[in-house]
Amino acid sequence: MPQQELSQWVEDLNRVHDEEQERVFSEASEVLETSELGLLLESLPIDERLALWQTVAPEERVEVLVAMRSDARGVLIDNLSMPDLRAMLHGLDAEDLIELSQSLSDKLVDFALAKMSQDQKSWYEQSQQYDEDQIGRYVDHSLVMLTPNTRVFEALRAVRRAEHPMLDRVYIVDKKGHYRGEVSLPVLLAADGQVRVDSLEDDIASPLKAEMDVYDAAERLEHSDQAAMAVVDDAGRFVGRATLRLAMEITRETYEARLMARAGLDEDTDLFAPVWLSAKRRALWLGINLLTAFLASWTIGLFEATLSQVVALAVLMPVVASMGGIAGSQTLTLIIRGLAMGQITFGNVWSLAKKELLVACLNGVLWAVVIAIVAAVWFSSVAIGGVIAAAITINIVVAAIAGVVIPVILDKYEIDPALSGSVILTTVTDVVGFFTFLGLGSLFLLG
Amino acid sequence: MPQQELSQWVEDLNRVHDEEQERVFSEASEVLETSELGLLLESLPIDERLALWQTVAPEERVEVLVAMRSDARGVLIDNLSMPDLRAMLHGLDAEDLIELSQSLSDKLVDFALAKMSQDQKSWYEQSQQYDEDQIGRYVDHSLVMLTPNTRVFEALRAVRRAEHPMLDRVYIVDKKGHYRGEVSLPVLLAADGQVRVDSLEDDIASPLKAEMDVYDAAERLEHSDQAAMAVVDDAGRFVGRATLRLAMEITRETYEARLMARAGLDEDTDLFAPVWLSAKRRALWLGINLLTAFLASWTIGLFEATLSQVVALAVLMPVVASMGGIAGSQTLTLIIRGLAMGQITFGNVWSLAKKELLVACLNGVLWAVVIAIVAAVWFSSVAIGGVIAAAITINIVVAAIAGVVIPVILDKYEIDPALSGSVILTTVTDVVGFFTFLGLGSLFLLG
Repeated sequence: MPQQELSQWVEDLNRVHDEEQERVFSEASEVLETSELGLLLESLPIDERLALWQTVAPEERVEVLVAMRSDARGVLIDNLSMPDLRAMLHGLDAEDLIELSQSLSDKLVDFALAKMSQDQKSWYEQSQQYDEDQIGRYVDHSLVMLTPNTRVFEALRAVRRAEHPMLDRVYIVDKKGHYRGEVSLPVLLAADGQVRVDSLEDDIASPLKAEMDVYDAAERLEHSDQAAMAVVDDAGRFVGRATLRLAMEITRETYEARLMARAGLDEDTDLFAPVWLSAKRRALWLGINLLTAFLASWTIGLFEATLSQVVALAVLMPVVASMGGIAGSQTLTLIIRGLAMGQITFGNVWSLAKKELLVACLNGVLWAVVIAIVAAVWFSSVAIGGVIAAAITINIVVAAIAGVVIPVILDKYEIDPALSGSVILTTVTDVVGFFTFLGLGSLFLLG
Repeated sequence: MPQQELSQWVEDLNRVHDEEQERVFSEASEVLETSELGLLLESLPIDERLALWQTVAPEERVEVLVAMRSDARGVLIDNLSMPDLRAMLHGLDAEDLIELSQSLSDKLVDFALAKMSQDQKSWYEQSQQYDEDQIGRYVDHSLVMLTPNTRVFEALRAVRRAEHPMLDRVYIVDKKGHYRGEVSLPVLLAADGQVRVDSLEDDIASPLKAEMDVYDAAERLEHSDQAAMAVVDDAGRFVGRATLRLAMEITRETYEARLMARAGLDEDTDLFAPVWLSAKRRALWLGINLLTAFLASWTIGLFEATLSQVVALAVLMPVVASMGGIAGSQTLTLIIRGLAMGQITFGNVWSLAKKELLVACLNGVLWAVVIAIVAAVWFSSVAIGGVIAAAITINIVVAAIAGVVIPVILDKYEIDPALSGSVILTTVTDVVGFFTFLGLGSLFLLG
């Protein structure tokens, strides 16, 4: 049986239409995991997506929706009839409602809560005590929880009955809800049946704090050797478990956000978002960049008189700005990664800046010489070569400093450097590049 | 006990030196996971990193090294003495050797192999049959493997003895090595002790193929609800298991590679790489970008005569190029993400292009009007406003087309669009922007 990738299904599904498309989609449903159907639906224009949604089995709909990006999900939910929605929200569990609640009206959230079991409802309410960037909001409860005085034979009976995925341990929680430790299944199996579970070997470092930042929690999970870690509140009460799968989702979303942020986009952006909405969202970013472009133009405008006499300056000025921008973005990219991984702080930023400055001097001088030769030959003027060499060196060195300083300062003020770092950097390298090149040109090239 | 994040340790460690630093590092070793020590060491300049390495407990050294990025690891290994290295390579397991082998000389790999158990050695050799981008290379063997005729009570005994992390199931493999299924621990516990394991409920969709691309395999794992999936070869023989932790590492590395690629950097780049090496690696990328910058300059050079008469064109031309570049990179970013997720193929690229084109027309016209008004007022010339409006609209529309076409074509020829897409796009938007703006200016603005 050949394994067909998601992209192959995307291809097949997009080549056909109407009933044929429904047939292909139903074939895909049989082979793919339910959550992969969400990704598949996202690859279709909105009208086709809505048509195929109707063919998704009712019991799979929640899982498909949860797997979609929130924009794409919103479009679907807006197009569902009230009875369809209500049917779907029946028997929702707490984790699914947490994921879906941002796309649902308050009335629908209340409806779902009213239909929930008491346990699920209190888990939902507990999650709402934590912010969107705190791990406590996203814990799950598909786990076996035992009181400290449970005997091993009773614990094994509980495990036998459990139908949770990734079940490799049991959690010990006392009657007041305090977390007391956890025991892995092999240890449980090896123990005497009459022994109390809290006398067994505890298999755990320290649990995660519910207030911990989601990304830091994901990193801890990645570096532990467990499939899940217990999460506790300030008073040491057990809140739930955070799984490696959750950590993976958090990691993926964090990276997607960083990648998309460079273009001023949101990680939830739908491929087939309505044209009007896409245009509106992107317009803001274009507007911000326009302001910085006008700042660069204004800098050039200071030297109109020089430019009209030495046109070569107008021809060469993009080279100066562009080399600064590229060199600066190399430093910026490295620093942003280090900040995101927690590997850069005020403690080591000075050593890093020194290193980046040395790298910039080497590359600045190297490329200044190359560019100077090309410019001098092109415009038959050694003076032009000298001016551009000086401007390139200065701009690359300034770019390196800016590439370190900008993200570190943004990070200190809790502004995400992945979003705005690159715009600010380019503004600096454009303005400094144009100003030094045209300024030096005015000093040394005017007849 | 307050939970101290990695970044706090980085800060503390970088504020002190020598013996004080050793004290802080040893405190960190007690609290952090061993693999986090690797990240901590990377945050230090090379000399301090080497000094602290000497204080890492011998039994933890392999794990610390494995957790480091290959560049940083290479620096450490190059500075270790032969006896130290040999001591460390004693008792290495197959997976660690696979990770470390790229940083080790052939002689040292042979030494490690000679000291390995027969099992580990054959696993290592099996992994070498697969390419670096195939999941078969990275499977692990920390699992319980049983023949089909094993009785449940024997299976439970095997589980009891096992000391593997993330043990939530056993794998059934026949005497010829063919994969026959897997049974979760709760099912095993609920079964009668005398029953054969292959008669129990099989808990699995389909295993992964060893030749599968690592990134696709990571996505399958993310969407399954298991902590690990079995991996089989072409003939259906069991190769090992791929865990969710592996999937997470692959996902992180893939995203890091995409983020770093935009600046022409490698995901293994060490923060404190030697200056000379950093300069050399970055120089190539600067060189490539210089060529494209000169192409833009050459385009401008075609219009020297026009520029010397209408200096306003020189002042405004960066605005035209920059708006095209930003609009194009928004489309490019969205398309690269879709390609990476397998959500874009030749099947739906045409519908996407249509949508992006419409978005570009809307934003093109909007910003053309804004920029035209600013330019007309600034230079007191309605004609300049008209020329820049036309150039902006054309460039933003071309940028949208290029933003779709460039990555799709690169992807078809298996060139990573995350690496070169943005350079090619900027070249297109610069050249088209300068050419249309200066060309239209020559037609309509010359006296």
